[in-house]
This record gives sequence, C-alpha cells and structure tokens, in this order.
Amino acid sequence: MYGVIMAGGSGTRFWPRSRSDRAKQFLSLYGKHSLIQSTLLRFSHLVPWDRIYIVSNRAQKKMVTEHCLNVPRDNLLFEPLSKNTAVCIGLAAVHILENDPDAVLAVSPSDHLVLDKKKFKDTITAAAHFAEESRSLVTIGILPSRPATGYGYIQTGEEIAYRSSVQVFRVKTFAEKPNLATAEMFLKSGDFLWNSGIFVFRADVYLAALEEHLPDTHDGLRKIQAAIGSVRYEDVLQRVYRQIRGVSVDYGVMEHARSVLTVRGNFLWNDLGSWEQVYLLGKKDKDGNSAHGNAVFVNSRNAYVYSSKGVVGIVGLEDVVVIQDGGAVLVCKREEAENVKLLVEKMKRANMEKYL
Amino acid sequence: MYGVIMAGGSGTRFWPRSRSDRAKQFLSLYGKHSLIQSTLLRFSHLVPWDRIYIVSNRAQKKMVTEHCLNVPRDNLLFEPLSKNTAVCIGLAAVHILENDPDAVLAVSPSDHLVLDKKKFKDTITAAAHFAEESRSLVTIGILPSRPATGYGYIQTGEEIAYRSSVQVFRVKTFAEKPNLATAEMFLKSGDFLWNSGIFVFRADVYLAALEEHLPDTHDGLRKIQAAIGSVRYEDVLQRVYRQIRGVSVDYGVMEHARSVLTVRGNFLWNDLGSWEQVYLLGKKDKDGNSAHGNAVFVNSRNAYVYSSKGVVGIVGLEDVVVIQDGGAVLVCKREEAENVKLLVEKMKRANMEKYL
Repeated sequence: MYGVIMAGGSGTRFWPRSRSDRAKQFLSLYGKHSLIQSTLLRFSHLVPWDRIYIVSNRAQKKMVTEHCLNVPRDNLLFEPLSKNTAVCIGLAAVHILENDPDAVLAVSPSDHLVLDKKKFKDTITAAAHFAEESRSLVTIGILPSRPATGYGYIQTGEEIAYRSSVQVFRVKTFAEKPNLATAEMFLKSGDFLWNSGIFVFRADVYLAALEEHLPDTHDGLRKIQAAIGSVRYEDVLQRVYRQIRGVSVDYGVMEHARSVLTVRGNFLWNDLGSWEQVYLLGKKDKDGNSAHGNAVFVNSRNAYVYSSKGVVGIVGLEDVVVIQDGGAVLVCKREEAENVKLLVEKMKRANMEKYL
Repeated sequence: MYGVIMAGGSGTRFWPRSRSDRAKQFLSLYGKHSLIQSTLLRFSHLVPWDRIYIVSNRAQKKMVTEHCLNVPRDNLLFEPLSKNTAVCIGLAAVHILENDPDAVLAVSPSDHLVLDKKKFKDTITAAAHFAEESRSLVTIGILPSRPATGYGYIQTGEEIAYRSSVQVFRVKTFAEKPNLATAEMFLKSGDFLWNSGIFVFRADVYLAALEEHLPDTHDGLRKIQAAIGSVRYEDVLQRVYRQIRGVSVDYGVMEHARSVLTVRGNFLWNDLGSWEQVYLLGKKDKDGNSAHGNAVFVNSRNAYVYSSKGVVGIVGLEDVVVIQDGGAVLVCKREEAENVKLLVEKMKRANMEKYL
C-alpha cells in the first residue's frame, strides 16, 4: 500500500491565516502540527515513509518541502497547475505504477481532521483488502453525527460480510451537498454516510476506470508516465497539464464506476471547512469562548479568537470569529464563516492582493 | 480673557487607540487635527495664543508639548497628579492671577468636539460679558438634540435679557446623568440643557467660590500661588497636591454657588464619550458603514472600522466597532461602546499593562 496525500488546495476560507503563500493544509487548526503534518503522521502508521507520495503544485513547493521533511524528495510531485482531484490522483498513480504495478493507493486530502489513528488504520486496512480482492474502487464513508449540509453523501446498498469491527457496503449512489431538510432525511434513513474524500484502490484499477470514463485524462497521464525519468518529463508534464480537463474524482470517476464499495469509518472526521468547524471542535471556557493567543472578553459568549501576536479585546458580542494575523483582521459572524471566501473575492477585485 | 484648556484626562474608552501614553485628547477622532489641537484652534479665535493655558499632568508632558507648539512653554502647567477639575482650574487661576488680577477665564475640556467656531465665539463672548458684569460663574449649556443619558443636565430658570442671538438664564439646578425616561422628560420640558463642561468666570470670583465651598483646596492653591517664581515652587506644588482632595468643579463649586448663569450654546457639541459617538458623527457609505484605513465589508451594516495599517475584513455583522491599532484589536458591539473601559480594567487585572 502507498499513501497519496493531495496537497494542492488553496482554500480561502481561513483568511487571514491562510494566504496565497500559506494554504489551509499548512496551518495548525487543531493541535500543534499543521494539518498536512498530522495527515502524514496518520499515514506513517499505515505505510513506510518512502511509500508516502504528496501531490501539490509548484506555487506551494517551498511550503510542502518544509512541512514534509520525512517524505523522500522524489515522492513530492508538483503539478504545473491544479487540475482537480481525478488528475492529481492520476499523476501519483502513474509515478507509483512505474515502480510497483501491484500498488494499492490510499488517497487522502491533506487538510482534514481525523481523530483516533487506530480506527483509521483499521478502516483503511479493510478498504485495501477489498480494493485488492474485488478490484473495486473503495471510498471511506463516515457515519454522520449531524445533518451537515456542507458535505457530499454516499448512499449505501448491500452490506458485504467482513469483520465484526468494520462494515463494508456496496455504494448505491453519491449525493451532492443536500439542503437541511434532505440532510435530515439522510440522517434519519440510516443508509447515508458522509463522503470523506478518502479513497483506496489499486493504481491499475484507477487508471482503467480513467480510461473508461475520462479517456483524454487517461491518455495524457500515460504520456506523462512514458516520460518519467527522461529529460522530456517537464515538457510533457507542462503540455499535458495545459490541455487536460480539470475534474474531480467523485464526478469524473466514482459516480460512473461499476464496482464501488464504501467502508464505514467510525473515527471522528471533520473537513475543517471553515472557522465555524474549528470553533466547534476547540476547547471553550465557561462562556463558550475559545481563545488562541491573548484575548479578553467582556459581556461576550461563544466567540472564537485567534491572535498571532498583540491582543484582541471583545465587548458585547456573541457568536463571532475574530482572527488577527500578519497585519490583517477578520471579524465574522460564526454562521457566516463560509462567506469569508466572498470577502477574499471582494479583496481581489479591490486590488488588495497584497493582503491575500 | 484667557483660555484654560484642561488636558489631564486619561480616558480608556478609546482603547486601543488611546493608550497610557496617548490619551484621548491626542487622538484625531474627528477631522485631521487631534482633539486638543482643534480645541486650541477654536480658542485662538477668541484670545491670543499667549493667553491660552494648558493644565495637564506630568505623565503627559511630552504629548502636550508636541501637540501645543503654539502655546508658550510657560503656559503649560503640569500637575504632579490629577486631582479633578476644581483643583485643575484653580491651578490655572492662581498662575494667571499673578499677572492679571482682572483675568476672565474661559475653561474647557480639551477632548470634546465643537463645530461652528462663530457660534462658539459668540457664546463665549456673551458668557464673558456676564462673568464680568454680574461676577457670576457662567456655564455653557447646550440645547439637547436627543435624550442623552451620558451627560449631566442644567435646569434653566429666569431668562436674562441680552442679545437676540444668544440666550442667557439663571441656573435652577444641576442634574446628574439621567436614565432614559428622565432624559426624555428633560427634553420635553424644554428647560434643560446639556452641561458642556465649559465655564467662564473671573479668576478671582472662582477663587472666592473655592474659599467659600472648598476652603482647603483654596488654601492649598494660595500656597502654590505664593511660591510661583520661587525655587520652592516644585516642593510646594508636590506637597499641596499630595494632600489636596480631588473634586470636580461641578460638584465642588457650581452646585453650591449662589450666582450661576448659563449661556445657551447653539453650536454642535459632542463629548465624544465613546466609539459610538465617533461612529454617529462620521461619514457612512450606503450600508451605514464607516471606515478609516483599509476595510472590506461583506453582508455587514452600520459598522465602524479604524485600521491604522493592514486591513480589516468584516463578514455578516451589524452595529459593531472594530479598531486595529498598535498590535491590538478591539471588536465591540456599538451599543456597548461604553464598556470598553471594563475591558481595559480587565486587562489591567490580567497583567496586560503593556497593551494599555
């Protein structure tokens, strides 16, 4: 088995902590490690360090190199530009296939939170078993704990007998992010799981699925594969990426594939999609306030403060997020935390790139 | 006539712009000049620069000297420590009396806002006329425009005939800061004015009033007066200030004095008591937002932002004040702007003096 960590994201919802040169995966949003470092540590319990691959893009090369010191340099793959997950996984697949035609890939985002390494390991091990045995594409589904509207869902079909501690199902359908009423129905029905974005499959099975459902992507990746180790590699990579269509592995592959299984993960998982999730997961004082750095609260409740230096004082407010970092300040109603991306877009239009 | 500007305040309600070494009067809260500079400019239309005296305290000597370059150095009086307004005015009075036994003092806080210099001049000129003619203590009352609960009020009695453009009344009572219901009654009655803290009287009349109502204060000030110009001055000043009781001119003198008049000022006056007042007076965009420095608003209304550098982004909030200055950030519900002082007290208790 190989770990493939997708680290090309450039999320803007954690501004001003995330910046153009410091994407979300490089932030310590939970615990002392950056999210990508926590992901690597998690995978290091599953596979040796030299079987972990990182796929990122050139703009993030410096940060990736700094955060992934234990990963061999040759395993750091940098796309010329991001073309979404189907291509990103494909690039890792062709590189790994060159050395190991029987490779099984455990693919994961670099910027999500997973607690309980033991359960995670059991889940991935089960997924690898089925990826090998049935040559299926296996996705990790998470037992939902609330009617989340920010996640995609997986509807489970027939359960496949395995060990008592791990449940495995055929996938009936993938459902896009639902509205609240639908999410509540999903939760009630008991046969919907959150789509975690973690996948396990044989590299050759994945490429065969690409060949069937995204033939142009497959052809491009095979051209790159043919150039690995040659002086032409950079040129070919550039050329293919310029032409290749960006598409996600969910829409481009998983939804069309014939044999898709899901292993139900019972570990705590959170995509840390916004400051709201970070607040919800963090420690609070008796007034529900959560502070990192110097913060002082007066008549205030259920607030999240991050202050990289100096001090933040809050008076008479509830349910706010206040972030002070690098000369920029964000003040946001917690329930509007998703709209930080709108703020970043507005700043771009206002020629404020230097603060992004 | 002489101008006496009281500049010893150390207001904490404008933190983090006001700091222990930069009190409110040194901030530019309206227009480009600091409040003390605006006050000086206003008085420079009434009296020559060498008839303007500043009373502040030693801790603020550097800032006073920087902001009051047009005032002769000898006219800058620094109290060893602040002992409230009755004493502060008394110190200026004994200094001015040494040179001019007929001096009329126009006494004013240094940190309030007055718009319309012409009306201000007419009001003070009328007050000086009555201060001379009737040897009264004259206070400037402001026609209330709203049922403010943050100001003291003056109840007017019999009107005294003067010029058509200026109304002068005997003072019936001084009323402390009312609750809202009382303030509404005051406004409705038509015979209450806001107590502006601006006074006009002969220096000798003021000292006679001190002798009658605050004899210890009077005796102390006379000791200081006797030492002016001698090598003993500093010693005497220290000794008197260590013993003298701090009391305001309102409670200590005006409320007990027999002949008190009030001149009704029709100029726009505001004590700039909190960020809320600064917001209300400032320019707003179509969403009611007011920004100084870089600020970006998403789904936000009626907010006030001051950012000394960098940028402040606001998402999904209404009626907030956000101040970024000198590494500190204040986020405050507008209606709780008065409670910034509680925040400062809390920071003191938490040993955060370095941010104050």
